[in-house]
Amino acid sequence: MTRLDAVLDHVDANLDASLDRLFELIRIPSVSTEPQYAPDCRRAATWLADQLAGLEFDASVRDTAGHPMVVAHGPATPGPHVLFYGHYDVQPVDPLALWTTPPFEPSLAPQPDGETFILGRGASDDKGQLLTFIEACRAFKAVTGALPIRVSMLFEGEEEAGSPSLGPFLEANAADLKADTILVCDTDMWDRDTPAITTMWRGFVSEEFTITAGDRDLHSGMFGSAARNAVQLLGTIIGKLRNDDGSVAIPGFYDGVTELPEAIKAQWARLPFDSEKFLTDVGLSVPAGETGRSVLEQVWARPTAEVHGVWGGYSGDGFKTVIPAQASAKLSFRLVAGQDPDRIRTIFREFVQSLLPADCTVSFRAYASAPAEMMPLDGELLTKARAALTTEWNREAALAGTGGSIPILGEFKRRLGMDSLLIGFARFDNRIHSPNEKYDLSSFHKGIRSWVRILAAFGDKA
Amino acid sequence: MTRLDAVLDHVDANLDASLDRLFELIRIPSVSTEPQYAPDCRRAATWLADQLAGLEFDASVRDTAGHPMVVAHGPATPGPHVLFYGHYDVQPVDPLALWTTPPFEPSLAPQPDGETFILGRGASDDKGQLLTFIEACRAFKAVTGALPIRVSMLFEGEEEAGSPSLGPFLEANAADLKADTILVCDTDMWDRDTPAITTMWRGFVSEEFTITAGDRDLHSGMFGSAARNAVQLLGTIIGKLRNDDGSVAIPGFYDGVTELPEAIKAQWARLPFDSEKFLTDVGLSVPAGETGRSVLEQVWARPTAEVHGVWGGYSGDGFKTVIPAQASAKLSFRLVAGQDPDRIRTIFREFVQSLLPADCTVSFRAYASAPAEMMPLDGELLTKARAALTTEWNREAALAGTGGSIPILGEFKRRLGMDSLLIGFARFDNRIHSPNEKYDLSSFHKGIRSWVRILAAFGDKA
Repeated sequence: MTRLDAVLDHVDANLDASLDRLFELIRIPSVSTEPQYAPDCRRAATWLADQLAGLEFDASVRDTAGHPMVVAHGPATPGPHVLFYGHYDVQPVDPLALWTTPPFEPSLAPQPDGETFILGRGASDDKGQLLTFIEACRAFKAVTGALPIRVSMLFEGEEEAGSPSLGPFLEANAADLKADTILVCDTDMWDRDTPAITTMWRGFVSEEFTITAGDRDLHSGMFGSAARNAVQLLGTIIGKLRNDDGSVAIPGFYDGVTELPEAIKAQWARLPFDSEKFLTDVGLSVPAGETGRSVLEQVWARPTAEVHGVWGGYSGDGFKTVIPAQASAKLSFRLVAGQDPDRIRTIFREFVQSLLPADCTVSFRAYASAPAEMMPLDGELLTKARAALTTEWNREAALAGTGGSIPILGEFKRRLGMDSLLIGFARFDNRIHSPNEKYDLSSFHKGIRSWVRILAAFGDKA
Repeated sequence: MTRLDAVLDHVDANLDASLDRLFELIRIPSVSTEPQYAPDCRRAATWLADQLAGLEFDASVRDTAGHPMVVAHGPATPGPHVLFYGHYDVQPVDPLALWTTPPFEPSLAPQPDGETFILGRGASDDKGQLLTFIEACRAFKAVTGALPIRVSMLFEGEEEAGSPSLGPFLEANAADLKADTILVCDTDMWDRDTPAITTMWRGFVSEEFTITAGDRDLHSGMFGSAARNAVQLLGTIIGKLRNDDGSVAIPGFYDGVTELPEAIKAQWARLPFDSEKFLTDVGLSVPAGETGRSVLEQVWARPTAEVHGVWGGYSGDGFKTVIPAQASAKLSFRLVAGQDPDRIRTIFREFVQSLLPADCTVSFRAYASAPAEMMPLDGELLTKARAALTTEWNREAALAGTGGSIPILGEFKRRLGMDSLLIGFARFDNRIHSPNEKYDLSSFHKGIRSWVRILAAFGDKA
């Protein structure tokens, strides 16, 4: 029996212990966007550092202006040096009423099709996913006493908050964090049977803005129709953000946007993808994106504008016939290659200003932004990883895109010239950022096995 | 010295005591739309009943399905019998942060121009106004031992909540409440020097609706642009409610709407009204109503649609890149003569349905409604009241309209054939329904004196 088979057997034999550790981590409510959970974010960081110290990593919790980082280094060995990146923070859980189990009390839910769901906030994004890599390292240590290559790890606690501290931290610790490539486990499989390596992702620009009309709320009986209504004005602006054909209406928004490379287009066309099911699985059936674009293009290769929340006027019990003086919205733009986030922020603000009557004002609050990225498709490590995944899943690994944004990897690319390998085992129905988030037990189990194979392949002399 | 002068002198000499009673009433936080204030609403009703019993009225607090009513009858006398109607409930106080004094701790604020503001929620709407009538009755009792005509009173505690209990109560107590006419003190002066009798007011229809797109909130990275966004859809619908020219865009909305009678138009044209100041006083300058209509027409004689509040998606700290599955709004329509509230509700719902993509749904919640009303301009009591006001203010009393709605008076008209005399001493800058509501001390003082003159005039044989 080969060393590799022994490590894989160890993974299979110790899956319950791996699962117990995942449950421990999910029980820590490390919501990064809500200040009251700051101590829990630190607990999650400490938990990770302790786990890695137990695997003889040189692991430490590092303070930042926000939630702490975890940095861990394995012993130096010949061959490639990889830096695994993940995030221990999770999304808020509201609306809590829609959860069928408490979000921070993980549980297993066997499914009719034989799959078992791991339920809980962060089960998939990103606690379950990052543990697949740590558990793979644990198995190697247990069976062989060492890892086949040099491995470092970096975990942040602000990914769901736009990673405000990561840029500065990276700047201050560039030498310490430099490696040959970055490994990330925060993405989806192609489908439940087909593994995927994500080679392109969208950028984003996030904004909050508040419209002010008049200097006080007014009585709609006394002023109704003559006085400007801030909520109505906000609605008008939101309604004009996108055209009836689903495209974004801001002048100049598509400047610099190019068509998808033919190679990618062709490969995507070969992949099994049921765009109807993609929508019906979440209760929808009419694609809302640009007319004439496939759903895959809409979510991976095309930019968009999405409003994440609105508030203004009276929303309490009963009724209040007020003309609100203020109304606010949070929104973000998803960007593709060729779009400059700062420019998009500027033309969005000009667009809003252009829709304001002379007696109304708007204030903007800038949140995080990041450009889109596209990784080279011909690197040695990507080739080895793709082969390893193909072996484990017995299905050719897809080279995919993602509509999401992973700003920090753009930072690594620009600051340290490091490319990224995005290999994740989540499925598109994992309900991340939504109530009843889940991770498939098979994703967790075969994810650990996949990383074992990838680490072994990286260690082989080519 | 005439009996009338003696009563007026008594009013002047006892103004401080009248003011103390107003402060007592304002200190009771009788917010009718927020359930936690229900006990305070009952306290306000009991306070009124006690005051009237002290004036030898047959006064009682009557339970309803909602907040209680107060009914009081003075002794039967020859001549006209009037029913004075008012409401002891007040609007919610949010946003509390914008109040410069605590809303339920009334105070006097002397102004540079010599006026003094009575500050507090309800100081104007309607506690200060309804007390002008009670204090006028008190003065008559004190000086002459009796009122010059038969007076009954009815106070409700749900006016700011759409008066849900008043229709049924009126139905059940028709005989007990029947009188020759209804007196109401819940309206404005024409300006600080010119008294007014309001002879027309708008109706209204109030609705709440919730848009649902998909069966869960989604991650905008994973689904952004392809998945329908409920908040964006809500914005589109709100944005399409009114046309760029300020008119309401719902098909058929203006069916049955007629132009203002020439007599009214001519009288309004003669009245001093600074439409620019009307808007600049509340921080606005661009009329938002129908192009080509005067501001007076826009707020008194034309129907409109106003959104009172919106909510949906994430509005907490930080940022959440979610595609909201639900979004809601509260809105109302102000109606004029010729518009049927039920029909307006129906065509609004059809309008919203017509804007929904096939995979989205909407649920509606109906709140109160009432048609517009227009009172005859040639009645004997109106003529006497107008003359009395003209004497007290030394300025011809205007016959005005109001953009507000007073549904119960339409009920009295339809159920009991009683017309209404709307005589109020509020000013348009009283900030009712807004933070820092105020009532001018001169409104309170001369308001009491005005009712003394009106009651005396009603008592004179014509």
